[in-house]
Amino acid sequence: MKLSRINRGGVDGPVPRLVVVKPDQGRVVDLVSAEKLRLMRKGATSAGALLRALGLFPGSMAQAISTGSAFLESAAETVAATGDDASIEFSNVEWIAAVDPPMLRDCFAFVAHLEAYYRGVGQEISPVHYRQPGYYKGTNARCFGHEARIPWPHYSDFVDYECEIGFVVGRECHNVDPDEAGKAIFGLTIFNDYSARDCQTDELTMSMGPTKCKDFANGIGPWVTTIDEFDDLSALEMTVRINDKECGRGISSGMQWLPEELLAYISQGGVVQPGDVFGSGTVGNGCGLESGVRVKPGDVIALEISGIGVLRQVLGQKEERGWRPIPRERNVI
Amino acid sequence: MKLSRINRGGVDGPVPRLVVVKPDQGRVVDLVSAEKLRLMRKGATSAGALLRALGLFPGSMAQAISTGSAFLESAAETVAATGDDASIEFSNVEWIAAVDPPMLRDCFAFVAHLEAYYRGVGQEISPVHYRQPGYYKGTNARCFGHEARIPWPHYSDFVDYECEIGFVVGRECHNVDPDEAGKAIFGLTIFNDYSARDCQTDELTMSMGPTKCKDFANGIGPWVTTIDEFDDLSALEMTVRINDKECGRGISSGMQWLPEELLAYISQGGVVQPGDVFGSGTVGNGCGLESGVRVKPGDVIALEISGIGVLRQVLGQKEERGWRPIPRERNVI
Repeated sequence: MKLSRINRGGVDGPVPRLVVVKPDQGRVVDLVSAEKLRLMRKGATSAGALLRALGLFPGSMAQAISTGSAFLESAAETVAATGDDASIEFSNVEWIAAVDPPMLRDCFAFVAHLEAYYRGVGQEISPVHYRQPGYYKGTNARCFGHEARIPWPHYSDFVDYECEIGFVVGRECHNVDPDEAGKAIFGLTIFNDYSARDCQTDELTMSMGPTKCKDFANGIGPWVTTIDEFDDLSALEMTVRINDKECGRGISSGMQWLPEELLAYISQGGVVQPGDVFGSGTVGNGCGLESGVRVKPGDVIALEISGIGVLRQVLGQKEERGWRPIPRERNVI
Repeated sequence: MKLSRINRGGVDGPVPRLVVVKPDQGRVVDLVSAEKLRLMRKGATSAGALLRALGLFPGSMAQAISTGSAFLESAAETVAATGDDASIEFSNVEWIAAVDPPMLRDCFAFVAHLEAYYRGVGQEISPVHYRQPGYYKGTNARCFGHEARIPWPHYSDFVDYECEIGFVVGRECHNVDPDEAGKAIFGLTIFNDYSARDCQTDELTMSMGPTKCKDFANGIGPWVTTIDEFDDLSALEMTVRINDKECGRGISSGMQWLPEELLAYISQGGVVQPGDVFGSGTVGNGCGLESGVRVKPGDVIALEISGIGVLRQVLGQKEERGWRPIPRERNVI
């Protein structure tokens, strides 16, 4: 099944709705509308049907996933019953981030990108990258869906894209091993880890992880393909196109840590929540830093992953206004 | 006003409730219970009163703060009307994290700790720390309140405490300057940034920020004191006691970046959400790494900050079970 989120107009402004996506038909099914219709055909009043449908299919993907396997069972039943009568053409859809993750994390699992990145910035790779998976924690406050305009932060002249697989977590995990973790992956989406390269090197010397270089935007979409639709997670083809021109291509077999190892590792000591998203890290040649492409405002970035689809977004104009800190004198207390 | 969250038993298990805290009386007021009572005295039915009270005072502090200034106005009105009739003694309270932050961030603003930390690990301080505030992003999935037992992760033999001010954000911020940011601080709490020191140095070489060394636990409590109760944010006394013995003491004037500068900086490019928490960074001498104290399971850690109160927690036994990754051969793809 393919699932996403869209905005729909309402009396109180736009409301997020969960949808089942039918890419071959170019349509989505609004799960609340379809379920409401199904219940009314079984004798519910309009108000009663809506109340129950909203309880089954909240606008938050994370909340829906937190209801366990009942979520997909209900969605399948609803779509089979009344999906065709509650569907919307892609051309009339306003996509939002397919998932609203309680926590967003991003790994560094592709060896080719790891080595190319460090070669690019002229630094030695820490041997720790070969002993344990690395990941940073991103922001859940700036997640953008399919066809969105991506804000370009005022402090950067060098925004880059990164083509990654986004793994969506299906259940709460704590101290699990890879076997258990493998069963806890709900599905896969496409993750564009937008990066402001001109902030990155400096701020990473602070040993606190990426901040300004990452926190302005994450692409998550166009939808989530549930894990049952994949035969082989190491055979996913990943392609980047900028303004319709191919600029990078890779395959998921380049990950030195398997998805279930990444999730198991993240769960050690901590807690991973239903709906959390973790990125694979950029596929080799999956960013401008490696491919030599320098994107600019107005460019259309399309990331394709086989078995999922295409996440297409456009880069906005640079923000005009912002604030920058005044440097401190060293050793002033 | 002092606000926190507690768990209360219910027909469907424990439910989180917002409370107004009266430390001088040793009591909290359950805002939903008090508001329900107030409305019933004005003619509401029990069910009608409960519905409206739950809408005014959700169990999530972040959701309550997102309702704007109406939140504190309603809380004051409710407590004045029926607070005494809906109050609970501290001895009957199960505290939970005072705030459930959508995003948790932690800065590094105390110069004394910055310099002592780098001296301790034998590394040069990056000059970038004097040009811009550094912060890392923490986990919102492991936040513990007053009197909680703190899990000790299976992979560490060296857990440490860190005494910090936790700033609670009152409204959404994007690209704000320090003037605007100052008006967006809702209140202050105590933040214990628990750290697994034996993971920290290694994982920071990966340039992705702290992960296993931080993500197992954050202390947030015992409550939030709203910003109007503070005359001078640079005059807060911060004290650490381990098993009732004082082990560290500092003052908030040691921050080289002011709270409003930290918030302004965090908002650049990104978005800060109502209920987000950011830590000040550890006060000088506010952690075992600096004071030479090595804590162990069973130790009681009490952090006191003037104008707030005391956050007291106990360290649990080391977890027995976990998984560790198998190292990769370098350059294997």
